Amino acid sequence: MTQASIAQSMGFLNDLYPRVQQFYADQMQLLDTGDTQAWACTFTEDGTFTANRNPEPVIGRAEIGRVASQTAADYAAKGIQRRHWLGMVAVDARDDSSLEVRSYALIIATERGGAPVVQASTSCDDILVPDGGSWLVKSRTVLRDDLR
Amino acid sequence: MTQASIAQSMGFLNDLYPRVQQFYADQMQLLDTGDTQAWACTFTEDGTFTANRNPEPVIGRAEIGRVASQTAADYAAKGIQRRHWLGMVAVDARDDSSLEVRSYALIIATERGGAPVVQASTSCDDILVPDGGSWLVKSRTVLRDDLR
Amino acid sequence: MTQASIAQSMGFLNDLYPRVQQFYADQMQLLDTGDTQAWACTFTEDGTFTANRNPEPVIGRAEIGRVASQTAADYAAKGIQRRHWLGMVAVDARDDSSLEVRSYALIIATERGGAPVVQASTSCDDILVPDGGSWLVKSRTVLRDDLR
Repeated sequence: MTQASIAQSMGFLNDLYPRVQQFYADQMQLLDTGDTQAWACTFTEDGTFTANRNPEPVIGRAEIGRVASQTAADYAAKGIQRRHWLGMVAVDARDDSSLEVRSYALIIATERGGAPVVQASTSCDDILVPDGGSWLVKSRTVLRDDLR
Repeated sequence: MTQASIAQSMGFLNDLYPRVQQFYADQMQLLDTGDTQAWACTFTEDGTFTANRNPEPVIGRAEIGRVASQTAADYAAKGIQRRHWLGMVAVDARDDSSLEVRSYALIIATERGGAPVVQASTSCDDILVPDGGSWLVKSRTVLRDDLR
Repeated sequence: MTQASIAQSMGFLNDLYPRVQQFYADQMQLLDTGDTQAWACTFTEDGTFTANRNPEPVIGRAEIGRVASQTAADYAAKGIQRRHWLGMVAVDARDDSSLEVRSYALIIATERGGAPVVQASTSCDDILVPDGGSWLVKSRTVLRDDLR
């Protein structure tokens, strides 16, 4: 890279990396507090959620929200608090102003009165598209390490 | 939001988010290396520490430091190294220039010769007030997931 | 600090902290996907890797890569996916334009069909030297908490 393109790339990353982190923090907190409808609204209307745990991708914000609400209700009924931690966030800009984000995700599950358990270790690959000053998830692919 | 307020909000977050992360990294490292007096100095003189594990909030920097020193001594005596991980940090600015920070915290405890254990999974809600180029914690509320 | 030096320090941190985080995200993903040669290239030619788990430091990019490749092959043979999480990153600039970075690292290991295990909790102390718009590791010291 030339010095100019390095500087541009540096400024670009500084401009968006903190906001990407804040986006994920907000998104995970919506999921873990059980506000699954607001969480689903962080996906595009035609967003997709692909996981090696599921036979088929979940397609569309409405369906993504429906599945998440069911899962949240199941864990609530068992008195289990889950927390999704996203980390090791690597952001790449694409020519169409979307972002390709490769990260790791952990799920920590704690039963009322019990010890915390690392329920799943995964990779998480997202395509984010701009939405005002933030983003929406156009596609997410979560691969659990135990199912590879 | 208008384009102007979006840009202002973006610049604002970029300006403080990295420094908030550095503040927490420094703060957790002070605690985990046992420098509890320096750690207590990251709270305001009248700072409060509320936890669902304790019957009453701990009030004031001196008392917060005293309790932390006792806890640190207990773990040192058992040969246990603890590490506090803070993540999923969501920062909101308030009108009075303080920050409201919602995050998750994990405590990883490792006994000499033993395996690491996830000792606690919690939420952590802070009010930070400006202090030079950094912040002090005015109030912290830590809720352990197993005690909800 | 004076107001001017505070502002300078603030701008300085904002300018590099996101890029340091991206550097570590890329670096850990190279290691965990088994691309150990590319991972080794994130160290300087004369880079050192010191660990309290090993009797001697590993010295030089070539040797660092060789050791990492052997370790990666061993885990692959056992069907174990490892993920290195770095967090609580505290960055200090040094006069020679290198960075001193103190952080925590966790290793999460997941066997095919098994549950994730926190394999190690460590501190990680790096000296990073500038390399274009990014950095290379000149020295890394990893101390496992169970071996202290």
